[in-house]
Amino acid sequence: MARVVNFNAGPAALPLAALEQARDELIDFEGTGMSLLEHSHREAPYEKVHREAIALLRRMLSVPETHDILLMQGGARGQFAIVPMNLLHAGKSADYVVTGTWAKQAHEEAVLFGNMAGAKARVVVSTEKDKKFARIPTKDELAFDPSAAYVHITSNNTLFGTQWQSYPETGDVPLVADMTSDLLSRPIDVSKFGLIYAGAQKNVGPSGVTVVIARKDLIAGGRTDIPQIFRYKSFADSESLFNTPPTFAIYVMRNTLRVLEEQGGIEALTRENAAKAKLLYDTIDASPDFWRAPVEKASRSIMNVVWRLPTEELEKKFLGEAKAASLVGLKGHRSVGGVRASIYNAVRLADVEKLVAFMREFEKKNG
Amino acid sequence: MARVVNFNAGPAALPLAALEQARDELIDFEGTGMSLLEHSHREAPYEKVHREAIALLRRMLSVPETHDILLMQGGARGQFAIVPMNLLHAGKSADYVVTGTWAKQAHEEAVLFGNMAGAKARVVVSTEKDKKFARIPTKDELAFDPSAAYVHITSNNTLFGTQWQSYPETGDVPLVADMTSDLLSRPIDVSKFGLIYAGAQKNVGPSGVTVVIARKDLIAGGRTDIPQIFRYKSFADSESLFNTPPTFAIYVMRNTLRVLEEQGGIEALTRENAAKAKLLYDTIDASPDFWRAPVEKASRSIMNVVWRLPTEELEKKFLGEAKAASLVGLKGHRSVGGVRASIYNAVRLADVEKLVAFMREFEKKNG
Repeated sequence: MARVVNFNAGPAALPLAALEQARDELIDFEGTGMSLLEHSHREAPYEKVHREAIALLRRMLSVPETHDILLMQGGARGQFAIVPMNLLHAGKSADYVVTGTWAKQAHEEAVLFGNMAGAKARVVVSTEKDKKFARIPTKDELAFDPSAAYVHITSNNTLFGTQWQSYPETGDVPLVADMTSDLLSRPIDVSKFGLIYAGAQKNVGPSGVTVVIARKDLIAGGRTDIPQIFRYKSFADSESLFNTPPTFAIYVMRNTLRVLEEQGGIEALTRENAAKAKLLYDTIDASPDFWRAPVEKASRSIMNVVWRLPTEELEKKFLGEAKAASLVGLKGHRSVGGVRASIYNAVRLADVEKLVAFMREFEKKNG
Repeated sequence: MARVVNFNAGPAALPLAALEQARDELIDFEGTGMSLLEHSHREAPYEKVHREAIALLRRMLSVPETHDILLMQGGARGQFAIVPMNLLHAGKSADYVVTGTWAKQAHEEAVLFGNMAGAKARVVVSTEKDKKFARIPTKDELAFDPSAAYVHITSNNTLFGTQWQSYPETGDVPLVADMTSDLLSRPIDVSKFGLIYAGAQKNVGPSGVTVVIARKDLIAGGRTDIPQIFRYKSFADSESLFNTPPTFAIYVMRNTLRVLEEQGGIEALTRENAAKAKLLYDTIDASPDFWRAPVEKASRSIMNVVWRLPTEELEKKFLGEAKAASLVGLKGHRSVGGVRASIYNAVRLADVEKLVAFMREFEKKNG
């Protein structure tokens, strides 16, 4: 059938051109007589793809030479454990800002590792109880431990639709950010971060590959009493070929990044993502009696827009009719409910325009 | 160009029909208007693929109900650490049989985890020094610790071309096997194993997904002081949907398993794999002055056949001319040299016949 408009929260929409390239060369990759899926990770045809994917990330995100880019497996949840395993040295404590389900779980994994390895993980502040994660903490709430091993934040909270609008100052303490759901959606000054990680399956590629961007001195000074497979140093020293990488996932990420760069890179993405979010929030705000956005305005995410309808029955009707109109993936996370439109890089302004037109029509009929 | 004959050691050849299916539905998966790469792992279209992949493994390997099948990320190297993290309880010791590079590294990872977690990992025997890993230990050399947490073996050694012909008896001590390079190539009695793991990229699929088959009581009794993402229990309790899985890798594995089952399943694979190996070893043995197989006959692998030529110069010539004849991936591992033909499930008897014909011709000209 014709392509639907895909608002999935991740794995999510990918640029059609990236998929078409994958299809066209699936059996015979660049005239080698075999699929990329069958290529050795130690031979030139794959190595070229691997290096290009890393180079694209470096260029598009303006990653300075002080930082390495690593491609790993295991998703953000893997990093919830791997970050403390590398950076949380014995006798130290790490600071966690808990702004959602994933931040909470990141903290829990750090506590478990800390218990085993003679270290601690502290919650600086949690926005769960007062506002059910509907806001990002204010500056005043962020009383960081100046001797912390690092400060961990989640830059964008997929389930609750909140996002840090500016990043906290942590002084000499390295700032670590889970950017799974907003990497490459807006400009970031990578030099301000000790470490950034992201599962690729939202903005930059398919599931199965995890991007890590980390300061070289933090990688070099990482714990050496953990298994080698979990050391950032193993991946930095081997150009992320420490073991067999998820070759096809990296290849599809490469294709995706190529398309996004051709579309104008980070500048064009920033512009379009802002326009997409504005259009959607404006539509919601225009009818506060029908649509209701639970997130504080100052904390609104431009990636995951969540809203409610007057009743759960109407929400169900909305989701059903949207799906029938080829607008799919709009159901809120099973733990939260409501409606959520994930408008990552591969969702275009024209797609959001279709959604907004559908919303106006639905409101007219049911409002 | 036309398909080459692919003797890669992994990632390796896949059945053409499995790739063609991936190509044909790459843009529009089963009429859903989106690629499988874009589907949520929490929706029916992907879940069906996921469950079918697990069901195919269970059926084809005759996995009893006492064992769970898990799909994880991180490859066999990930399991080198994750096995002890789950099964090596404080105060215990694990036994490792070191028959190659990967077995050695598995032991090293267990030592590192043990140091942190109050446990030990012991080498029962290593075949490195006497014979450079050219043989599997004899029964007499396997003096297991009857109180060990588990015994770890590597069923097939990709670099050195050796393979266990029968598995050791370990009594009440769980037997753990890295079967990355021979899973589903011959029948195994899964009930005799506490845990089996395998990176998929040799016999059952592409890189990026790791198969784990483990006894339910071992999963349930695993350490609870490690991060949740590394607990087998997290994956068993969630049908391997604890976090976002590597969806496309699992899908290609599903396609591959379907094709292998249609070809006759484990019985047909066993027959053909034996015939392939016999043809190749017979060809080598027929000219001991020209081809030289360094592995003891009783330890020969039916998956990775390694051999040498009279000189390194001739080896280079052989590899170059083979490649020109579309016989690719025959170079021995960079740490070993020589020639290696990896003849996994997707390499057919007709492919090995082509290689053997080429070898005979080459010998005639250069012998």
